[in-house]
Amino acid sequence: MSGEPPAKQRKLDSKEAFLCVFEQLARDVCEDEYVKRQPAYAQEWISFMQNYNVPKGKLNRGMAVLDGLVTIKPDLTDAEVQEANILGWCIEWLQAFFLVADDLMDDSVTRRGQPCWYKRKEVGTVACNDSIFLEASIYRILKKHFRAKPYYALLLDLFLETTFQTSTGQLLDLITAPPGVVDLSKYEMKTYNTIVEFKTAYYSFYLPLACAMVLGGVKSDAAFDSCKEICVEMGTYFQAQDDYLDCFGDPEVIGKIGTDIEDNKCGWLICKGLEKMTEAQKKTIQDNYGKKNPDCVARIKQVYRDIDVEKDFREYENESYKKLQGLIEEQTFVPGALYMKLLKKIYKRQK
Amino acid sequence: MSGEPPAKQRKLDSKEAFLCVFEQLARDVCEDEYVKRQPAYAQEWISFMQNYNVPKGKLNRGMAVLDGLVTIKPDLTDAEVQEANILGWCIEWLQAFFLVADDLMDDSVTRRGQPCWYKRKEVGTVACNDSIFLEASIYRILKKHFRAKPYYALLLDLFLETTFQTSTGQLLDLITAPPGVVDLSKYEMKTYNTIVEFKTAYYSFYLPLACAMVLGGVKSDAAFDSCKEICVEMGTYFQAQDDYLDCFGDPEVIGKIGTDIEDNKCGWLICKGLEKMTEAQKKTIQDNYGKKNPDCVARIKQVYRDIDVEKDFREYENESYKKLQGLIEEQTFVPGALYMKLLKKIYKRQK
Ligand SMILES: [Mg+2]
Ligand SMILES: [Mg+2]
Ligand SMILES: [Mg+2]
Ligand SMILES: [Mg+2]
Ligand SMILES: [Mg+2]
Ligand SMILES: [Mg+2]
Repeated sequence: MSGEPPAKQRKLDSKEAFLCVFEQLARDVCEDEYVKRQPAYAQEWISFMQNYNVPKGKLNRGMAVLDGLVTIKPDLTDAEVQEANILGWCIEWLQAFFLVADDLMDDSVTRRGQPCWYKRKEVGTVACNDSIFLEASIYRILKKHFRAKPYYALLLDLFLETTFQTSTGQLLDLITAPPGVVDLSKYEMKTYNTIVEFKTAYYSFYLPLACAMVLGGVKSDAAFDSCKEICVEMGTYFQAQDDYLDCFGDPEVIGKIGTDIEDNKCGWLICKGLEKMTEAQKKTIQDNYGKKNPDCVARIKQVYRDIDVEKDFREYENESYKKLQGLIEEQTFVPGALYMKLLKKIYKRQK
Repeated sequence: MSGEPPAKQRKLDSKEAFLCVFEQLARDVCEDEYVKRQPAYAQEWISFMQNYNVPKGKLNRGMAVLDGLVTIKPDLTDAEVQEANILGWCIEWLQAFFLVADDLMDDSVTRRGQPCWYKRKEVGTVACNDSIFLEASIYRILKKHFRAKPYYALLLDLFLETTFQTSTGQLLDLITAPPGVVDLSKYEMKTYNTIVEFKTAYYSFYLPLACAMVLGGVKSDAAFDSCKEICVEMGTYFQAQDDYLDCFGDPEVIGKIGTDIEDNKCGWLICKGLEKMTEAQKKTIQDNYGKKNPDCVARIKQVYRDIDVEKDFREYENESYKKLQGLIEEQTFVPGALYMKLLKKIYKRQK
């Protein structure tokens, strides 16, 4: 037997199949009755903006819905596969909505290998409304495809609650470390955990799996609560990795040069590191954090090496994995594979 | 008989009673389980931001829900009054969400007699996320108060559809007349009507009355379609008035000095005016529109006077009123008073 998967499976799970669904949904939005009422130049703006911002990511979040659903319900009809992928794309639209606004607020330069949307000369702060339009499109898609389902209100609640959580996390991220202000008392592990739970974990982990559970017919509140707990742990671990790789990862492998130190980020390394630094080391951080100067960055990294914060990260990584395994084995609401598939994809990732 | 209304009615309809409901809802958002999980400084930001942006307008849109509901159902219970006012506040939250983003995009300076939110030094582009948070709060409020109602999904659809429509209108408004570009071919009555239908009429007129109809138990799709048609006409008329007053209203009465000419706005006067200008007059417009210089503004106003565009406005006003009266009398879904109360408030307004 060769390693080639059978044709049907290859078709179902592939990124190409998933991208085909995008084409249909993008067309639906462009052919929405209210969009069709706009002049041609506005319709063209919408189409271009949507293509620029929605489908260009890794698509991990979006594809996790079908991936999760098959663990709950192995024999899916074509219609069920399609529904999972539509919800997956709604998550990608949600991410695009947040990223377009995030880049504007973070004054970022590039995203997914192209200039940030707001950086284009004809866009600027119009990006703020484009972000709103991307979000509103989610509910046009959901209405078209799920209005008649008994779980329609449940789906709306899920997306809307996730949006509220994420905006809360974004706020905390923005006001905890405003540009140019290095206030070491703000970099606490407790705050860090709250930021990443709210700004990342709910939309990146809980939302795709909760969508899979809704489609899989899971009903009990306890099942969703258990999923939330596991996904918050997994999302926090995922973001900690992201922060670790930003500093210590191989730029060749992660595909970018980290700038968290320069950007004054409230990241895992600084929060953990501060717990064990001497006063002299804290002074070095105070004087050098959040500066674009490479010498300052080197001094920060030297402190991280002196206190061996990498060791703390490895310990955290092992503990978090054990904790997750425990939580996953303990629960009986859904097959453990729903979670383990996702965990295996991210555990000890190098990029 | 004195002009004083009976105590109960005064209490129900008053702005003070309506503002009391705001206090409760604002507290609910601040005591939301996810907000409570945030550090004190984030909770304080949310509370201050909400008070700064939500309750300071004229509250016409919000109060129109109860005002409309009593025309459908004259004997309301206290609970029904409360429900109408909660939906009214959701509309005010929606308006705040759009205005916070609109001021940032329009580079505006003041709003409701105070600096625009994004203009505060600690805010800036964080306003973009605050706008998102304000929107997401609507659905926390709706979930808390209406989750168990049979019309819950209908309410969500209504708010979400209105948001989609409004963001479409905002986009058209932004890209039709970008700052500094005077392209007379863009100022067409057809485009103008599309902009105001989408950016104003749905959220300002249709949404409050549709909320009243939902609470009043109106069910037929035809009733909502008829309401939409009437509200689009009324909202378009309302915005045309706004544009007329911006240029010809008494600044003492309207409470501000109009800047639509300086701001290069695609307004009613320029769209209508261009239909009857000579080439020489068009040239004057081309050379002087969208400039901060008072001499330029005076030249534009002189052209408006030379072609007597005020007369066109008066004619439009009379025709629109007649058309509205006809539409309102024709329909039998709801008492005509639902619409006439609102129309009387705005017809031939001086501010
Ligand atoms: Mg960012
Ligand atoms: Mg950010
Ligand atoms: Mg990162
Ligand atoms: Mg504006
Ligand atoms: Mg505007
Ligand atoms: Mg105006």
